[in-house]
Amino acid sequence: MAHKGTTLSEAFQDTASEAQSCQSICVQSIQHCLQMGGSHVEPSHMRLMQDCAEICETTGTMLLRGSPQHNQVTAACASICELCAQSCDRFAGDAQMKACADACRHCAAACQQVAQMRPGGAAGPGHHSVP
Amino acid sequence: MAHKGTTLSEAFQDTASEAQSCQSICVQSIQHCLQMGGSHVEPSHMRLMQDCAEICETTGTMLLRGSPQHNQVTAACASICELCAQSCDRFAGDAQMKACADACRHCAAACQQVAQMRPGGAAGPGHHSVP
Amino acid sequence: MAHKGTTLSEAFQDTASEAQSCQSICVQSIQHCLQMGGSHVEPSHMRLMQDCAEICETTGTMLLRGSPQHNQVTAACASICELCAQSCDRFAGDAQMKACADACRHCAAACQQVAQMRPGGAAGPGHHSVP
Amino acid sequence: MAHKGTTLSEAFQDTASEAQSCQSICVQSIQHCLQMGGSHVEPSHMRLMQDCAEICETTGTMLLRGSPQHNQVTAACASICELCAQSCDRFAGDAQMKACADACRHCAAACQQVAQMRPGGAAGPGHHSVP
Repeated sequence: MAHKGTTLSEAFQDTASEAQSCQSICVQSIQHCLQMGGSHVEPSHMRLMQDCAEICETTGTMLLRGSPQHNQVTAACASICELCAQSCDRFAGDAQMKACADACRHCAAACQQVAQMRPGGAAGPGHHSVP
Repeated sequence: MAHKGTTLSEAFQDTASEAQSCQSICVQSIQHCLQMGGSHVEPSHMRLMQDCAEICETTGTMLLRGSPQHNQVTAACASICELCAQSCDRFAGDAQMKACADACRHCAAACQQVAQMRPGGAAGPGHHSVP
Repeated sequence: MAHKGTTLSEAFQDTASEAQSCQSICVQSIQHCLQMGGSHVEPSHMRLMQDCAEICETTGTMLLRGSPQHNQVTAACASICELCAQSCDRFAGDAQMKACADACRHCAAACQQVAQMRPGGAAGPGHHSVP
Repeated sequence: MAHKGTTLSEAFQDTASEAQSCQSICVQSIQHCLQMGGSHVEPSHMRLMQDCAEICETTGTMLLRGSPQHNQVTAACASICELCAQSCDRFAGDAQMKACADACRHCAAACQQVAQMRPGGAAGPGHHSVP
């Protein structure tokens, strides 16, 4: 219920911020996994972190520009973040993977809420409120 | 029927190529509209071209790395490309806007086909075929 | 002297953070200028904000992955941020342009310091210190 | 001498096209190396391909929007592409690495020529010629 009663632009700002944090930690985690080697560089795991970093970047930017057409993008971002989190979960005891999974889940939760806001509800940053 | 019987990776490559072309023309169209001024720099039109360039870039990259998790992203890309094409349509007689609308519709069509391929159908580039 | 005696990775992290903030405010400022119209949408001003957002994003990502080959990129980022700040300075009394100029100058300063660190000084995040 | 006597915008378009091709092949090569494993996933090699893909993307976009401030960015892109090519050269007999090295060198050559064009020589696409 975090976004209830807040203006749409606050939800956008918060979610953009989560997406940027998630992008950052995914970028760092990719290098961490390359240093670790072994199962850390399994192609599908590495690909998920790359996809996650990329969709988070796009999501963050779209939200920062207050795009009304964000719904499918934020929904896609939520799904990919959740898959990335699950992939990181497999590395029990690895602090970087734990931090990555946490950031992914925070981003997924924020994106899921924003994705359900009605399309076209925001004409721009700071001008509209969620009823 | 363009992708019927082709390997998934060919469809991915073709769609990635359409997405890159669409991204390029959107980037150039933004500068064209800034040069034109007037209704060409209407905020929602400019924002759509920015969003379109961005989601096309992400879509192209995800397809080039053969990501099985592309479905929601390609579907989102198709929607945003179609909206961008409609926004460009309003500038009758403007060759750049016509070229942008055409590239957006080609990309939307390619993305729509790829989006309907079954999730997880591709484990990597060049290894799987569409039944 | 901010980075003196700190590990290279701290300087990288700080600069990556400045670059991300600068990218965010440039993205928002572009939409602000489109809303304002008039001299705010002058092509060279808008292009600088787009270039600035883009090079900041790349700079931030390269620093987050601890790239030893960052020197020319951080130097380029510093230059473009400074030009963007100067372009924003022309809009006296516009709070968004003031905020954008400030973020650009913070990023330029951070990038300039990092750009002067010796090439190849960092083999990865968190492992090396600046003598 | 490829760009001699051509308009600046043609050189920009050609180089943008080389940069996009290089970005694409780097993205695919990263997945190839993950599939191969072993020395292919050595952290500094993987990081170079990521950096190369990223700076190529930024370079391509800046050139497509006819940015006069491209010189340091194209110079940085040329350097990183050359380093990436050298890193790929080490994998003798690997066709993907060969193709990646070739694309990197084509992009580096194009960027180097464009980087030496005088700063501010282009006010926009299609309006200025190289003396």
